[in-house]
Amino acid sequence: MATEILKGHIADFPSLGELRITENGYLVLEDGVIQGVYSRLPPCYAACPVVDYGNRIVMQSFADLHLHAPQYPMLGMGMDLPLLEWLQTYTFQTEARFADTDFARTVYRRLARELIEHGTTRVCMFSSLHTDATLILMEELSRAGITGYVGKVNMDRRGVPGVLEETTEESIRETLRWLESCGGISGIAPILTPRFTPSCTDKLMAFLGSAAAERNLRVQSHLSENLQEMELVRSLHPDCQRYYQSYEKFGLWKDHTVMAHCVHSDRAERDAMRRANVLAVHCADSNVALCSGIAPVRAMLDEGVWVALGSDMAGSTMLHMLDVVASTIRSSKVRRIHSQWQEPFLTVEEALYLGTTAGHRWFGAGDGFAVGDRLHAIVLEDSELPSVRPLSVRERVERCVYRRQERCISAVWADGHQVL
Amino acid sequence: MATEILKGHIADFPSLGELRITENGYLVLEDGVIQGVYSRLPPCYAACPVVDYGNRIVMQSFADLHLHAPQYPMLGMGMDLPLLEWLQTYTFQTEARFADTDFARTVYRRLARELIEHGTTRVCMFSSLHTDATLILMEELSRAGITGYVGKVNMDRRGVPGVLEETTEESIRETLRWLESCGGISGIAPILTPRFTPSCTDKLMAFLGSAAAERNLRVQSHLSENLQEMELVRSLHPDCQRYYQSYEKFGLWKDHTVMAHCVHSDRAERDAMRRANVLAVHCADSNVALCSGIAPVRAMLDEGVWVALGSDMAGSTMLHMLDVVASTIRSSKVRRIHSQWQEPFLTVEEALYLGTTAGHRWFGAGDGFAVGDRLHAIVLEDSELPSVRPLSVRERVERCVYRRQERCISAVWADGHQVL
Repeated sequence: MATEILKGHIADFPSLGELRITENGYLVLEDGVIQGVYSRLPPCYAACPVVDYGNRIVMQSFADLHLHAPQYPMLGMGMDLPLLEWLQTYTFQTEARFADTDFARTVYRRLARELIEHGTTRVCMFSSLHTDATLILMEELSRAGITGYVGKVNMDRRGVPGVLEETTEESIRETLRWLESCGGISGIAPILTPRFTPSCTDKLMAFLGSAAAERNLRVQSHLSENLQEMELVRSLHPDCQRYYQSYEKFGLWKDHTVMAHCVHSDRAERDAMRRANVLAVHCADSNVALCSGIAPVRAMLDEGVWVALGSDMAGSTMLHMLDVVASTIRSSKVRRIHSQWQEPFLTVEEALYLGTTAGHRWFGAGDGFAVGDRLHAIVLEDSELPSVRPLSVRERVERCVYRRQERCISAVWADGHQVL
Repeated sequence: MATEILKGHIADFPSLGELRITENGYLVLEDGVIQGVYSRLPPCYAACPVVDYGNRIVMQSFADLHLHAPQYPMLGMGMDLPLLEWLQTYTFQTEARFADTDFARTVYRRLARELIEHGTTRVCMFSSLHTDATLILMEELSRAGITGYVGKVNMDRRGVPGVLEETTEESIRETLRWLESCGGISGIAPILTPRFTPSCTDKLMAFLGSAAAERNLRVQSHLSENLQEMELVRSLHPDCQRYYQSYEKFGLWKDHTVMAHCVHSDRAERDAMRRANVLAVHCADSNVALCSGIAPVRAMLDEGVWVALGSDMAGSTMLHMLDVVASTIRSSKVRRIHSQWQEPFLTVEEALYLGTTAGHRWFGAGDGFAVGDRLHAIVLEDSELPSVRPLSVRERVERCVYRRQERCISAVWADGHQVL
């Protein structure tokens, strides 16, 4: 058994709103698995090597529960366009490039490296509809040390004109080929991914529902992102009173199903999430960038809905989860403004919990740096920022959310290994 | 006469919403003054030296029309606190440190460097109430090559308990000492700065109004930032129907007066701005961070009110004007959401105009890279960002707003000189 000890200010988020700090503490690992966090090193570890991070903060890494990998090259462009024009000019044209596997390899290797540099060690991700590029994405994430789930996208219903659809038969055949090919990729598992209800025929949805049940696979998609989309779902599925039922009726609404956005989910839809243990992924910047709305995250949390954060690259302009956390707080402050200060905003500790523990739990982790979990951690570097007096660790954590120096994450541990 | 020629993609914002691009163009300077922008270099300049920026974009630099220099060391902290507690725990304690001139020198030198690195070449800035630290701030800005206006803050009315007020006599005496001492600082002029109406006695306001008239000085302050503040102004000045009249009655509401925020300024107050040629400074991130509200920038622009941008460091979490521009767009999208998509959001070109030309005009500049103006420009570096195809200059400008690589500003020209 290899014992490793990390020394520094240990900071984690064991529950909503709780920042637990062990100043000048020790985080002990055996074979990458957390044994405990200590203020004083237990004598039995006295002879073990210590990685001393000095005055730096060792904090939980981030989990990004919703993003579109093939949209990486268009991140930050086209945000002034109406949705349909944006899809045509940027999204579909960009995704179509991933038919080229060399291109996919180059882009995805770079994306994986950037994710690690940003301290994102777990992902639940959309690929494009291309089976081979999806396998390459899974390989490159695995190679960088990232763990998580990747979905080949299914989209066989003609809606937005002309690009990138598959036939139903192709979609089913390629999904099966993908599932049979991705078994050996360490740390990265497949997740079924109907793009969203309007892009899939009933036949394809039914196939995906059976595959989810038979192969015990997880499911991710989009839900109640904007009002026009909800109208479209109602016209396609007049039997469904609410959007989520268009997933439910095909067996896709189940424990650990991931639903991005949920901006306009009403109380009944949110209750259905809670009952089914569906994860709602809040994508604050995307919802503003596309003028979708501001999701009622505070209400969801009060009601016991499971909420985590997603960057939603490239519907958003952000990939760095510290930016995503900051945008989550800002969106909650907009809700506060529009509720005449009745609705409390999300605090730094609350938003960081959503960006860390709430997401990591979806992958089976415990609360905060939990004993028995493999380590997912970042080391924050803030020594170049000015200050007027010695800062508390809490103040330093807050400032890292809002203000970063270059290379503000100086080390990253993922799944028990140091990867940066 | 020294002729200098900058070669690259020349990009400027001559009017609201207009991005003018000269690809592979030439920007010709004589003694730092713009002679013209050309697609082909006129033969008379053929023998002159060319600074070749290659495929990079040479764009107007930024003007930051509202920020608090002494709050630099607390940037990004305390944003979860209620306003009063934030003022007590962070603002006043931090500002009080500037009684120490060595401390002020160190902090302000660093701030000036960071502003230049971010491409902010013109500022209209609050200092603290300390005369000596204010002089040091002016010197350090000048030394870095920044031009603009700095105000020693006046605040003699006890309101928020106990810290940092001056007596009326001290405030008047120190203001006079400051005005007499700052004459020789190149490029940086004084601006009268009552902190805001509730922090100044009538006697002090009257003194500042006379000084403004007698010495032909500009004025800056805060206006209609939040509803409680407006209530307080109404109780202090029951003769004033609207907040702005509390400045007007003392002669402080005049041509080129700078008013930060204007979140809750109604049509009558906005009309008064237009009539007096007062500049409204929009501080989008601050208004969200403090839950003040979202200023009606689109309405102001439609009505012909003069609007420019301010970072409002440290009521905001941002100093980099590219972030300020992005936050301006996001806030306008929030207004679009809450108007059921009736109010158009600010486009990238519109927000960049507000962050560049609209602000530079306050300092006497023309529109865009205007012939006869001293050059204020940045060179954008985006070569490390991935892309799926060759991008247009417009796309690259947009992406720089939302996504920056490290050291994304590779050169800066201020007041005709290269300063980075």
